[in-house]
Amino acid sequence: MPRLVMKFGGTSVADIPRIRNVAAHVKREIDAGSEVAVVVSAMAGKTNELVAWCKEAGSHFDNAEYDSVVASGELVTAGLLALVLKDMGLKARSWAGWQIPLVTDDVHGSARIAGIDGTRLGEGFAAGEIAVVAGFQGVHKATNRVTTLGRGGSDTSAVALAAAISADRCDIYTDVDGVYTSDPRVVPKARRLAKVAFEEMLEMASLGAKVLQVRSVELAMVNKVKLYVRSSFDDPAHPQLGTLICDEEDIMEQEVVTGIAFSRDEAQITLRDVADKPGVAAAIFVPLADANINVDMIIQVVSGDATTTDITFTVPATEYERAIKLLKQRQAKIGYAKLHGAQDVVKISAIGVGMRSHSGVAARAFKALAEKGINIRAITTSEIKFSMLIDDAYTELAVRTLHTLYGLDAK
Amino acid sequence: MPRLVMKFGGTSVADIPRIRNVAAHVKREIDAGSEVAVVVSAMAGKTNELVAWCKEAGSHFDNAEYDSVVASGELVTAGLLALVLKDMGLKARSWAGWQIPLVTDDVHGSARIAGIDGTRLGEGFAAGEIAVVAGFQGVHKATNRVTTLGRGGSDTSAVALAAAISADRCDIYTDVDGVYTSDPRVVPKARRLAKVAFEEMLEMASLGAKVLQVRSVELAMVNKVKLYVRSSFDDPAHPQLGTLICDEEDIMEQEVVTGIAFSRDEAQITLRDVADKPGVAAAIFVPLADANINVDMIIQVVSGDATTTDITFTVPATEYERAIKLLKQRQAKIGYAKLHGAQDVVKISAIGVGMRSHSGVAARAFKALAEKGINIRAITTSEIKFSMLIDDAYTELAVRTLHTLYGLDAK
Repeated sequence: MPRLVMKFGGTSVADIPRIRNVAAHVKREIDAGSEVAVVVSAMAGKTNELVAWCKEAGSHFDNAEYDSVVASGELVTAGLLALVLKDMGLKARSWAGWQIPLVTDDVHGSARIAGIDGTRLGEGFAAGEIAVVAGFQGVHKATNRVTTLGRGGSDTSAVALAAAISADRCDIYTDVDGVYTSDPRVVPKARRLAKVAFEEMLEMASLGAKVLQVRSVELAMVNKVKLYVRSSFDDPAHPQLGTLICDEEDIMEQEVVTGIAFSRDEAQITLRDVADKPGVAAAIFVPLADANINVDMIIQVVSGDATTTDITFTVPATEYERAIKLLKQRQAKIGYAKLHGAQDVVKISAIGVGMRSHSGVAARAFKALAEKGINIRAITTSEIKFSMLIDDAYTELAVRTLHTLYGLDAK
Repeated sequence: MPRLVMKFGGTSVADIPRIRNVAAHVKREIDAGSEVAVVVSAMAGKTNELVAWCKEAGSHFDNAEYDSVVASGELVTAGLLALVLKDMGLKARSWAGWQIPLVTDDVHGSARIAGIDGTRLGEGFAAGEIAVVAGFQGVHKATNRVTTLGRGGSDTSAVALAAAISADRCDIYTDVDGVYTSDPRVVPKARRLAKVAFEEMLEMASLGAKVLQVRSVELAMVNKVKLYVRSSFDDPAHPQLGTLICDEEDIMEQEVVTGIAFSRDEAQITLRDVADKPGVAAAIFVPLADANINVDMIIQVVSGDATTTDITFTVPATEYERAIKLLKQRQAKIGYAKLHGAQDVVKISAIGVGMRSHSGVAARAFKALAEKGINIRAITTSEIKFSMLIDDAYTELAVRTLHTLYGLDAK
């Protein structure tokens, strides 16, 4: 009998009518002959309410207590969905993380899954029972305390569960109907992708396409769990197609470029006239790393007189002020003449596993953007993507230009 | 080191400022050198919200799922109080029922406590840690599922916990400052009792003085747990006195009558001209019992001709319509001439363990009420109380008359 994990996020379970809609999706899969485990998030807004109370409660934040408060939101949804399923005449029961058990380490607030014992869930399946699992949470064995997997952790719960019970597929129901070639709000001609390779999805997720948590995609890739992203707002009786995220080998006709992503959460810092000698890069980047500031793109341009150089790099926009302050404090130690910063920048990326076997893919982009008068401030490339930092005023123009260039526009 | 259980209800933990107030009460006891376990209810209104969702979710109500949803409210409060205590520099951790574990039977929705393992809590005390326990809930061992003890069950949790950890006292913090000789809204001269015997408190609780759940008083009596009812709205630095509920022997000077209680939730039914022959009482009361209608006072008056009799009894007001319907259907079988009902009645009770050793206590009441022109419709007595059914128009007059009669008025 095929086994399926179905995951529904907070907006899909925001109230009882929506939970009924979720139950109708579950019933369709049961009627089709599947064994089903459903993973649910807290009702929309509930986690924020609980988090706000925790913040109000204590400046001496305690992550273990935070976890035990916040994980309660998913318990509520799981119980309510089980009630609705039973009301529809189906067999169901809810599972807290500790009941399964879904065992994690003890890093409260962002615990990692150590293992899932699928035995009890399996007994439930054998008895014809739907397992309704509270997402986002687990238990640390030695302390017997509840842990959470961090924000968005229900995706991770679902994928880990799918691996543990050897599910044939893990369906992630969300408020969009799949993964798109680009953000449809920016690119009207963007279209849903039928299939995306794990590696591509990882790049898209980390570059700001917020359909799936990076961590859940990694976990799916490692465990070869087929992920299917689809809409929870479909008519449950007539579900629409979504996007399958799978191994590269499972995708017959691979496009060179699969998607164009962009991220506005970037800031650029340039240090001018840095002495061009060994140890300078370390003097700049080691302190930033020690301060947990994540540096992304780095370019170094030798200046005219060849004894000094300019170094440009990007940091997350949220860390910009902190990075500037830290670098100014260390001006003498690093030995630079001037510091320039810019927050009005955007990172545009083209992603596709097909780049591995095609050359000159990025060069075509540089040419196309130049023809539109768009200045490229920095470039980074990897095996399956390349990224360019440009002025954010050109975001829409650049994204649409690349979308058309690589043949991604809907017909 | 003295051990204390402190229990706070929903209104005492309704928001973070109130939870801070609770924490200040806890800190006072810690500073005084006690080991403390705090039992908390859900924040006021939260349980009702969860119950409403459950009702909306399913007509095929499932008590196991209901329990797992509703018990989440107490988890939130326990975690928040632990956070606040830590913020005040104290050591604390929250405990779910299953973590202690507080083991119950599997009667979901109104489970009975089978046992509490105090080992882990004891280890916490040894480490100087305050135990913050989510009330109202336990776990059933064989199924590993969360159970609840029924509405008001946090009082029961607190008392059972006090017994399990051999606490010296169990303080029940509530929105009144103790147990009164009568309802102060009806009797302005009512005063707080310094001490009440368990047996008296049981009668008062079951007669409508809603300070404590009957079940928690029974449990305290059996386990000899000293209960102390006090106000959570006191200044934590200067706590006021409350009422100690304890063994009869611990009360030095016992009053004859300790309190005057009344219940408006009564209805009276009279069957006229019932054949005065064996089996008639069974014909009336067995069907009522089978229908789960709880009959309280019963009086039988032989009519003039001595071949028939009138039977009067009371039922809960909520069951009145059902009882009337059932009796009318059975008129032929029972064989009565007429049925009279009255809902405008009230049951007034005087309670006191001193009645055991004093005679004529009730007779004085009959005389006093007669002098005020109050007609007594029915009477029942037990070892430590007597109750009278009267017209509800005379409630205040009767209660105040008895309150004065037995010397209960505040000086």
